Amino acid sequence: MSPDHQHGGAPTISEVAAAAGVGRATVARTLGNYGSVSDATRAKVLLAAERLGYQANTLARSMSTGITKTLGIVLADVANPFFSGVLRGISETAKQAGYDAIILSTDEKLDLERDAIRVLLAKQVDGLVVASAAGRNDDVSHLSTAMERGIPVVLIDRLVDGLDTDSVVIDNREAARSAVASLIANGHQRIAFAWGPVTLSPATDLQQMHSILDEALWSDGERLRGYLDALEEAGIPFDTALVTHVLKNERQATRAIGGMLALADPPTAIFTTETEATVGALHALRTHNRRILKDVSLIGFDDSPWAAVMEPPLTMIQQPMRELGAAAAQQLLVRIEGDSSAPRKHVLPSTLIARSSDGPAPSRAAE
Amino acid sequence: MSPDHQHGGAPTISEVAAAAGVGRATVARTLGNYGSVSDATRAKVLLAAERLGYQANTLARSMSTGITKTLGIVLADVANPFFSGVLRGISETAKQAGYDAIILSTDEKLDLERDAIRVLLAKQVDGLVVASAAGRNDDVSHLSTAMERGIPVVLIDRLVDGLDTDSVVIDNREAARSAVASLIANGHQRIAFAWGPVTLSPATDLQQMHSILDEALWSDGERLRGYLDALEEAGIPFDTALVTHVLKNERQATRAIGGMLALADPPTAIFTTETEATVGALHALRTHNRRILKDVSLIGFDDSPWAAVMEPPLTMIQQPMRELGAAAAQQLLVRIEGDSSAPRKHVLPSTLIARSSDGPAPSRAAE
Repeated sequence: MSPDHQHGGAPTISEVAAAAGVGRATVARTLGNYGSVSDATRAKVLLAAERLGYQANTLARSMSTGITKTLGIVLADVANPFFSGVLRGISETAKQAGYDAIILSTDEKLDLERDAIRVLLAKQVDGLVVASAAGRNDDVSHLSTAMERGIPVVLIDRLVDGLDTDSVVIDNREAARSAVASLIANGHQRIAFAWGPVTLSPATDLQQMHSILDEALWSDGERLRGYLDALEEAGIPFDTALVTHVLKNERQATRAIGGMLALADPPTAIFTTETEATVGALHALRTHNRRILKDVSLIGFDDSPWAAVMEPPLTMIQQPMRELGAAAAQQLLVRIEGDSSAPRKHVLPSTLIARSSDGPAPSRAAE
Repeated sequence: MSPDHQHGGAPTISEVAAAAGVGRATVARTLGNYGSVSDATRAKVLLAAERLGYQANTLARSMSTGITKTLGIVLADVANPFFSGVLRGISETAKQAGYDAIILSTDEKLDLERDAIRVLLAKQVDGLVVASAAGRNDDVSHLSTAMERGIPVVLIDRLVDGLDTDSVVIDNREAARSAVASLIANGHQRIAFAWGPVTLSPATDLQQMHSILDEALWSDGERLRGYLDALEEAGIPFDTALVTHVLKNERQATRAIGGMLALADPPTAIFTTETEATVGALHALRTHNRRILKDVSLIGFDDSPWAAVMEPPLTMIQQPMRELGAAAAQQLLVRIEGDSSAPRKHVLPSTLIARSSDGPAPSRAAE
């Protein structure tokens, strides 16, 4: 620490400005390398920054290593509360390490994801955290190209086939399996699943369903496999009519689940994999005059603040959103600092928050 | 359009790569001005880009005008569904105009906002959309400095005193006034308000409350003023005990509203200004065994998908989130293209979505 530096923390731009006898904006322009600053002024600022030890922290580092102290974050859908939570974890961890996080949202579209990666590379980020919109067979050369150029990539929420890199996920398959198994343990045999795969040709048997899942988004596929695991363990036959095949939005979920509730042999329980699917299921139950718990049990991904104030409160799977984000940022920072060990897969635990939307299946006799 | 260009849309990087006989990554590096490319290769790529008309669209523009086709978006809290909706409107409009939007979230902290602006200027964005965390008396030189450097700033959701620039907002004061007036028309005299100002010394009279509001976040102040307007119109005396003064989070809202429900003369209606305040109010009602509508009416900002599946469904004020975002992006693009006319304030209409959480006040006789 330089003797000119008066307090315990890192020297501030204001201190550099005061020492150089210029304004804060001029210091920011000089140290940030933007805008126009005269050579004489630049020299004054750099001298003051060095004297105060400012240079050692940020400027020299950026100049000598090319590190810009910026992380690029590519999220499939910032409107999904899950990703908002993840983002908070990433931003907090980045900020603590002196990094800023710039975010691009891709609206679950792979072409927008390619654009986003191009933009972030042009903006010279030091590394990328990506929740990819890529299905398992999609071309992900935009990500591998970034890695080849020395920009580390950490995948979050979703694995991508053929991309051997760090990842931070939950065990989606086991989370779904155990939730569906708890419904089965309560006597449910007819369990609806939303969202299933988006396809116009619904799988007619298990084998077809598995090959459809081979091309799905990884997390979607895992959750449906967990559902199928639970059915298989209990010897319950797979019924494609209980799995949605529609586009993933609230209105389609409402329509598809409404159709299931109108079946001669309707579901007595619903398992949902996302917030919009859950809201769609609640609309369908209301429209078809079915009471939650009494008529139909419900468990879903992801827990939300409002789930606790529903009547009855909803049993939901809670992902450690902030921890997922923090772990991804942490892993990325380690790579930026030069760690070149083998890729790591972090699997964080999820939690079933038991409330009151699931219980015993209505007895057949009462129907 | 050049004769070498085969289809209707803008030429792609792949087409340029094919024409130049190099890989896509090399084209991206050359046109994006990052990474290392040999002079010979650079010449080949630029020639191919020019021949295909690629240059006319993006490259030449960037080189001749300094435009990077990137918008910087600074949002106070991406975890708030309101801002997620706004962001979608911004991103869609930007994308249609060939711009990318990079986002930073500031968690309602002014120092993080200053960092965010610094980062975005360093990343050479062409303009800024900002939902500022600044209270009305806070220093906003980070924003005025950006404007002085020729980076246009469009404020969204919140005005900032002393910053004479374009803005896109709703009429928060009138939206709150008319919602509270509708509660009063239903016979309610005791109406709780969350969130009020964050302060340890609650206002004891109207005048004090108004001077507190002079320093609050603009939108917060406007909503509370609208509430006060409605009370005044109806000749209902202001009671500071019915306005929260706590930190803005769900737990504090639950606690503060719970305290009001325990008063000897409790509120018969609640008006909430944000999603977390609404969820807090619902928790407090449940804890204190009050039924929505029958015991206590509820109206709040902002409408959410889940509000429609509550029992009873909640009456909410809906902001045109996507339209607000689109209008802000549109206004910013016009400035980037050189419009230097006087600042414009766009005021978009909000809508009261009447559902079933508000109705006649319980009669005094029945108490």
